[in-house]
Amino acid sequence: MTDSADRDEDTPVTPSDAMDHNEIYGEDGSIRQDYLTAIGAAIADRDVLFLREHVVRLHESELGDLLESITAPQRHALVSLLGDDFDFAALTEVDEVIRLDIIEALPNARIAEALGDLDSDDAVYILEDLDEEDQKEILAALPFTERVRLRRSLDYPEDTAGRRMQTEFVAVPPFWTVGQTIDYMRDEEDLPDSFSQIFVIDPTFKLVGAVALDKILRTKRLVRIEEVMDETRYRIDAEMDQEEAAQLFEQYDLLSAAVVDENERLVGVLTIDDVVDVINEEAEEDIKRLGGVGDEELSDSILSTVRSRFSWLLINLATAILASAVISLFDATIEQMVALAVLMPIVASMGGNAGTQTMTVTVRALATRDLDIYNAGRIIRREASVGLINGVLFAVIIGVVAGYWFSSNGLGGIIAAAMIVNMLAAALAGILLPLLLDKVGADPAIASAVFVTTVTDVVGFFAFLGLAGWWLSLA
Amino acid sequence: MTDSADRDEDTPVTPSDAMDHNEIYGEDGSIRQDYLTAIGAAIADRDVLFLREHVVRLHESELGDLLESITAPQRHALVSLLGDDFDFAALTEVDEVIRLDIIEALPNARIAEALGDLDSDDAVYILEDLDEEDQKEILAALPFTERVRLRRSLDYPEDTAGRRMQTEFVAVPPFWTVGQTIDYMRDEEDLPDSFSQIFVIDPTFKLVGAVALDKILRTKRLVRIEEVMDETRYRIDAEMDQEEAAQLFEQYDLLSAAVVDENERLVGVLTIDDVVDVINEEAEEDIKRLGGVGDEELSDSILSTVRSRFSWLLINLATAILASAVISLFDATIEQMVALAVLMPIVASMGGNAGTQTMTVTVRALATRDLDIYNAGRIIRREASVGLINGVLFAVIIGVVAGYWFSSNGLGGIIAAAMIVNMLAAALAGILLPLLLDKVGADPAIASAVFVTTVTDVVGFFAFLGLAGWWLSLA
Repeated sequence: MTDSADRDEDTPVTPSDAMDHNEIYGEDGSIRQDYLTAIGAAIADRDVLFLREHVVRLHESELGDLLESITAPQRHALVSLLGDDFDFAALTEVDEVIRLDIIEALPNARIAEALGDLDSDDAVYILEDLDEEDQKEILAALPFTERVRLRRSLDYPEDTAGRRMQTEFVAVPPFWTVGQTIDYMRDEEDLPDSFSQIFVIDPTFKLVGAVALDKILRTKRLVRIEEVMDETRYRIDAEMDQEEAAQLFEQYDLLSAAVVDENERLVGVLTIDDVVDVINEEAEEDIKRLGGVGDEELSDSILSTVRSRFSWLLINLATAILASAVISLFDATIEQMVALAVLMPIVASMGGNAGTQTMTVTVRALATRDLDIYNAGRIIRREASVGLINGVLFAVIIGVVAGYWFSSNGLGGIIAAAMIVNMLAAALAGILLPLLLDKVGADPAIASAVFVTTVTDVVGFFAFLGLAGWWLSLA
Repeated sequence: MTDSADRDEDTPVTPSDAMDHNEIYGEDGSIRQDYLTAIGAAIADRDVLFLREHVVRLHESELGDLLESITAPQRHALVSLLGDDFDFAALTEVDEVIRLDIIEALPNARIAEALGDLDSDDAVYILEDLDEEDQKEILAALPFTERVRLRRSLDYPEDTAGRRMQTEFVAVPPFWTVGQTIDYMRDEEDLPDSFSQIFVIDPTFKLVGAVALDKILRTKRLVRIEEVMDETRYRIDAEMDQEEAAQLFEQYDLLSAAVVDENERLVGVLTIDDVVDVINEEAEEDIKRLGGVGDEELSDSILSTVRSRFSWLLINLATAILASAVISLFDATIEQMVALAVLMPIVASMGGNAGTQTMTVTVRALATRDLDIYNAGRIIRREASVGLINGVLFAVIIGVVAGYWFSSNGLGGIIAAAMIVNMLAAALAGILLPLLLDKVGADPAIASAVFVTTVTDVVGFFAFLGLAGWWLSLA
């Protein structure tokens, strides 16, 4: 049995102590019910020994999953039962709502103590969501160097590399030898938990270069660091947007990169695991924005979800009423031939879907920078061609179907013509509107959907009912 | 001026030789027009010296971007002008269409020679898209060990860890000391280009553990590897789906992980840069499937794009006709009151959007495994509540608007009631349909959208027109 009292406080749980993935997770990737039941019972019984045995050994992400799988009262009980054995790093793995719920129940002194043991990037992640007053109180309770480090990260704007970076790193002067560097690492107690490169700095802390660890290991002891270092081409400005930094990591397959301040001084290191989180967040953001849901999370309350979706639906209501107004222009035409009311949603719906297809491709290509001013012309022509060809194909199909259904070749011809017009409009709206939004600096993912379907609804109803009105006036 | 003849063939271009990111890319992240113009002119002039100076120094991803930014004839000319200086790794950075276009223009012997110089995962990435015959011929032209390595990767199914892994790695026996290990790395010529951990194997190649490089560097020379190694908890089965492997990387913040065969023998290493690609592909896939576009890429031909989108639109046409059939049930009612035709798209549209919101959240939560059988009940209740509350809010708004518009409180009441019914139906369809598709093993992203909007169209028209018919029959 693990007893925390026997363990040195700073010794991390090693993987050999750790529990097996399959002891915790079932086949479907969610936490096993029997595990949850056992933990729930132990919390109810205040069985601290059992919890130490089965919870303290969890990886921070596993503990995060556990926290998300139990009820709020269980969470609070678990945190208090574990006391100093509760791994605060797990809070970086849970939804914001759950994180705040746990943090706000704890005294600031306790939080400060726990944050002092975390990597600076994790500590900042937890601190940044707290209100100013709590932040100040917690920072004040930290040792000076810790406080300065966290303060520096927090001073960089949200979503920048400076906010995401870890301020623990290994840096050596260029004139050291490989041997000296290795000896330093063997003797130094206060190294980061893990690192994949060593930075090279001058006496003013200016970044000179970097050496990957594998290069150090391949090199003879007497070789000087400056001979094996790379000039760090991929230094990241602390003010750089995290998304831009993530793109550099992706493009150049980086594991970590130096973060420098405006004077080119090394202030931290950005690591690939943070970048993976950024990549996921950005993809998530695009998907959610295209689907008309903001930044909501599964753990949000019902009311905050209602609120966040309401505004999107309200915009959609306005555009739907606009489309209805178009229809009402033709109420006399519909009265004359009610089949028009039956068929008109088909034209609008096909346009909406074709427009969504084009828009999805466009938004994604803009996000991945595959679409730019140099190929925009070609892509617009391509989309217009695709829209026109599919328009003609579906015009034939729906023309025949509608003609048979209502035994009217004329009606078949009208809907076919409207279909071609609307599919072409859909293609053009699907590519031009996101490009335009991007050009004016708006996020194409967030507003494209509503604009595109407005265009396809309005054009669809107008083309179909307008052509029908003209045709009926001929008869 | 760099002259390739002076350079040792195996010396990679070091970052200090490399060009600056800003020499190649403009502010908007796309390749600079002046750079493209200069390269285009050099290709036209067959100016090999200029190309060697300005193309050979590019990072593989930069060369990939360049290949995607020039015309097909320019691409072929560039590859042939560069000859042996063309970096085949760039082919892993371009669209499949462009990759195949370049590869198919080259003789197999030349491809074999080039693949021999690449990391095995890059070579496999290029080989796997070729037809069987070319694959065989190229493999036959490779040295024995290379051939066996690539063959082994290719024998694993597509989208598995075995297919993605790199077969170059560093492995040592557990009884070696840290000093012996470092000496081995200093003397061994044939190490992978870069690596972040050393694996520990027994004489039968069975995986025993792993040591991160930073741990090696912190440890005294006389300590034995087995004392510092971690039992590799996160070994990855070669048959494991790459998406599952990516989730392990994300959850446990891995930089690389051992890939083992069915006998627990070490066969390769999966690295975070490949995993980042997998994460991006999966997010891309979800976005595209939700938007009703398959695996299309920007470089696909117009006809193949038409084909891939046609099937989705055809399904949508069928569901649109189904919705029209529902409307046609009520043609007498519409004839009686044409305002119904004007208002009915509003109910359907609001339902469609609300359903899409719920569906987006559900599909994404399923993909990230945030939604599982343990919290499904709670999430369903939450979505139903959100749907009901927003339904009531929008019922009031549209009821008032429609009542004023057509000066009919009755009509306002009817559309309000239909709105509540459809918003609730939208919420339930938005969560239950993806859950059902996931349960039966289908991809919820691919089919949910069409099913959800079918439900909201049908329920919307039915509720609104049905209630209106009943109301009119009272009058």
